[in-house]
Amino acid sequence: MSRDELSVDVAIVGAGTAGLSALREVRRRTESFVLVNDPPYGTTCARVGCMPSKALIAAANAMHTRARLGEFGIRGGQALEADIPAALRRVRALRDHFVAGVLEATDDLGERNIAGRARLEGPDRLVVGGRVIRARQVILAPGSSPIVPEEWRAFGDRVLTTDTLFEQEDLPRRIGVVGLGAIGVEVAQALARLGLDVQGFEGAPHVAGIADEGIAAAMRDWLCEEFPVHLDAQVDLREADGDLEIRWRGRSVVVDKVVVAVGRRPNIAGLGLETLGVPLDERGMPEVDATTMRIGETQVLLAGDANGRRPLLHEAADDGHIAGINATSDEPVRLARRTLLGIVFCDPEVATVGQRPEELEPHEFLRGEVDFASQGRARTMQENRGRLHVYAAPTDGRLLGAEIAAPAAEHMAHLLALAVSQRLTVHDLLRMPTYHPTLEEGLRTALRAIARHLPPCSISDLAECGSLGAEALE
Amino acid sequence: MSRDELSVDVAIVGAGTAGLSALREVRRRTESFVLVNDPPYGTTCARVGCMPSKALIAAANAMHTRARLGEFGIRGGQALEADIPAALRRVRALRDHFVAGVLEATDDLGERNIAGRARLEGPDRLVVGGRVIRARQVILAPGSSPIVPEEWRAFGDRVLTTDTLFEQEDLPRRIGVVGLGAIGVEVAQALARLGLDVQGFEGAPHVAGIADEGIAAAMRDWLCEEFPVHLDAQVDLREADGDLEIRWRGRSVVVDKVVVAVGRRPNIAGLGLETLGVPLDERGMPEVDATTMRIGETQVLLAGDANGRRPLLHEAADDGHIAGINATSDEPVRLARRTLLGIVFCDPEVATVGQRPEELEPHEFLRGEVDFASQGRARTMQENRGRLHVYAAPTDGRLLGAEIAAPAAEHMAHLLALAVSQRLTVHDLLRMPTYHPTLEEGLRTALRAIARHLPPCSISDLAECGSLGAEALE
Repeated sequence: MSRDELSVDVAIVGAGTAGLSALREVRRRTESFVLVNDPPYGTTCARVGCMPSKALIAAANAMHTRARLGEFGIRGGQALEADIPAALRRVRALRDHFVAGVLEATDDLGERNIAGRARLEGPDRLVVGGRVIRARQVILAPGSSPIVPEEWRAFGDRVLTTDTLFEQEDLPRRIGVVGLGAIGVEVAQALARLGLDVQGFEGAPHVAGIADEGIAAAMRDWLCEEFPVHLDAQVDLREADGDLEIRWRGRSVVVDKVVVAVGRRPNIAGLGLETLGVPLDERGMPEVDATTMRIGETQVLLAGDANGRRPLLHEAADDGHIAGINATSDEPVRLARRTLLGIVFCDPEVATVGQRPEELEPHEFLRGEVDFASQGRARTMQENRGRLHVYAAPTDGRLLGAEIAAPAAEHMAHLLALAVSQRLTVHDLLRMPTYHPTLEEGLRTALRAIARHLPPCSISDLAECGSLGAEALE
Repeated sequence: MSRDELSVDVAIVGAGTAGLSALREVRRRTESFVLVNDPPYGTTCARVGCMPSKALIAAANAMHTRARLGEFGIRGGQALEADIPAALRRVRALRDHFVAGVLEATDDLGERNIAGRARLEGPDRLVVGGRVIRARQVILAPGSSPIVPEEWRAFGDRVLTTDTLFEQEDLPRRIGVVGLGAIGVEVAQALARLGLDVQGFEGAPHVAGIADEGIAAAMRDWLCEEFPVHLDAQVDLREADGDLEIRWRGRSVVVDKVVVAVGRRPNIAGLGLETLGVPLDERGMPEVDATTMRIGETQVLLAGDANGRRPLLHEAADDGHIAGINATSDEPVRLARRTLLGIVFCDPEVATVGQRPEELEPHEFLRGEVDFASQGRARTMQENRGRLHVYAAPTDGRLLGAEIAAPAAEHMAHLLALAVSQRLTVHDLLRMPTYHPTLEEGLRTALRAIARHLPPCSISDLAECGSLGAEALE
């Protein structure tokens, strides 16, 4: 061996969510492995993603309560003031706590934990620094990074991403948020609620990745009540006396900093995928079997955000789990993927479940809708901004999917995800108890709208006693 | 006919939730009916129950946000002040809106809508004032009323119930709440959060009807952080210089008013049930078939709170629905009742789903638990007070029930109610997507605790492709 060389059963590249999930499965079956990670350690989720953003949003939503205090008969709300440095300190304290929890997973690895950037030299050979690792199986889980247009890097720390936002000791008053997908909407609304002057820009015609025209338009209007939202806006940045000028469609606004949230890119540059001898697409991405995570017929698996499939934590965890099992099994273990579930933690919350109507032909689905403007519970809470669409098969009423922008959308989305994953029908859902007064009664309104277009199957939503599986539950 | 006499197919007594639900079914099948209601009109739910209480709770919870503002980095929370008269005015305005909605259901009935107190004189004969109504079928849905110990009535308007609480223009500072079941806990916590000095009393050892010792104890401690809670407390009231003295176990406290929330009693006194020729129990209650709502073999049906079965709105609505169908069908239509679901809208919310462990033998169930104290999403929201227990069959992991005191319990309870009603297993639930970071991840923790004690059924929570009903969902 010409260089320092190591042979293992499995090499895992990346100690993020997918890599650690793979590690858990690999360790169950072999002690012969290494975990290679290019610092920092700590998952995207804990360091710069889900957790710090949710901590910031919780503070922002608490601050936003003041918008409703007067109506509730509570005085003094106008005097509330966010201490941005204190709010950011809390975010970092929580982040450090969550990161510490993640680091425990690799605490005991010793020499099997290798810090460095890994590069493939063929399907069984990794190079890390001066070191060569020969592995019977390689699990690649190098994650993703925020996209920043190259020409904007010149603006230094006036251009932020989620990698740097939560590191700020303070924030200036005028903030542009470029990109209003899931991350951008969450950040823009949170900063606006904390009292900053936010301007939001999105190149697409819709916010928060919402597909339905009506829901997207409603959501845009609701966001516009809190900060200016510019859609279909291709944005240019330029220096303006030490500030940044954002220019779009002949208009412009001057801000102190810009948060760029135009998406994340798989960290595959320099990874050596071209040495695997498999076709790569124009982005340099190989084909991956989502039921095994394997790249073609190779001994290499690609898991997590890096494969560009579904950049969601629970999918990354599943990717790693599947890759870990397959890297340590003689035969392929093909595992079914979960029903699609996406949630954006803005207010109202946005959620997508299962199939989207644009994936279906018009005759393939019925749509039930509800508007929460006049929904009972929503009114008692003064949280009336909400729309929910649910989709079902016209033949048997099987739930296909849903799109929601509503209070508690994250919870109704889980209910619907269970229904879709279990292939339940509209009638099955109408047979469950719906408590009063709840937002789930709004969901029931939408389900009943579909039921009216299905072949009548019974005199009642309730099952007749003696019918399949039904009992008098006393 | 000696008196003004009317003959109809169906007479409905009571225009509350059950009566109106029955009316809907009856009108589908006959125009020959009357609805007799002893004023006021408007359901218990809309007038004095679910809706005004939820409106008050929303204001109280908004006020309570101040407890977390400092931690979030928001200044000025200590200056917030509830304007009790304004808060109560808002509650009444919302209540009037909801009551108006209910009244629309009887707007067009004309002479078929009879105001008055009905009394049975045998199974086919009702007397209302001087009027006799002969009906082929009678649906009784007279509702329930708050229980107030007779000797406390002498204290006049210093003793309130939910019938009178929301009518108050203002509230004095010192409030005793006697009875900490569902209604009492909601009211006591809401008034405490709005800044009143609340003392809570409960005769039983547990609050909010919680069965599990551990959850009940935790809930008691959480409530005690907000107001004094006295359990196992049999309470006496007496006059004290114009105020009220509450005495229990040798202790005493002086308050300005007392809210009595010790339960509700079916409105069956004077209804003439003794004229039906069926056995009555010691409370004067006949046996009712919950699948048809019929009293014995009579032509009389008893629906809603008045039958003392499950005094919940959605059950009352089902009662009326079933009664309405059966009052207009030649043959009995036996309908299965829904999975039990109970929710208390305190904070953290309390919920019960399906079977309770005390209804089961110890070998008949496995228990999975989670404590939300260190749960990720709960931490980001600073809402760490929560416990969840879920119960499943040890043989096949079928979900049996759950008891919860946690943030968003109302939503997780609906998810679990769907699972129980569909006879799903722990494995079925572990196969659904669980988004990150959500409180549903806490539920998953509890489910996994059960799965570890079930026969292993697979290498993974995920289904293997090609297995029953599983597909690669790409």
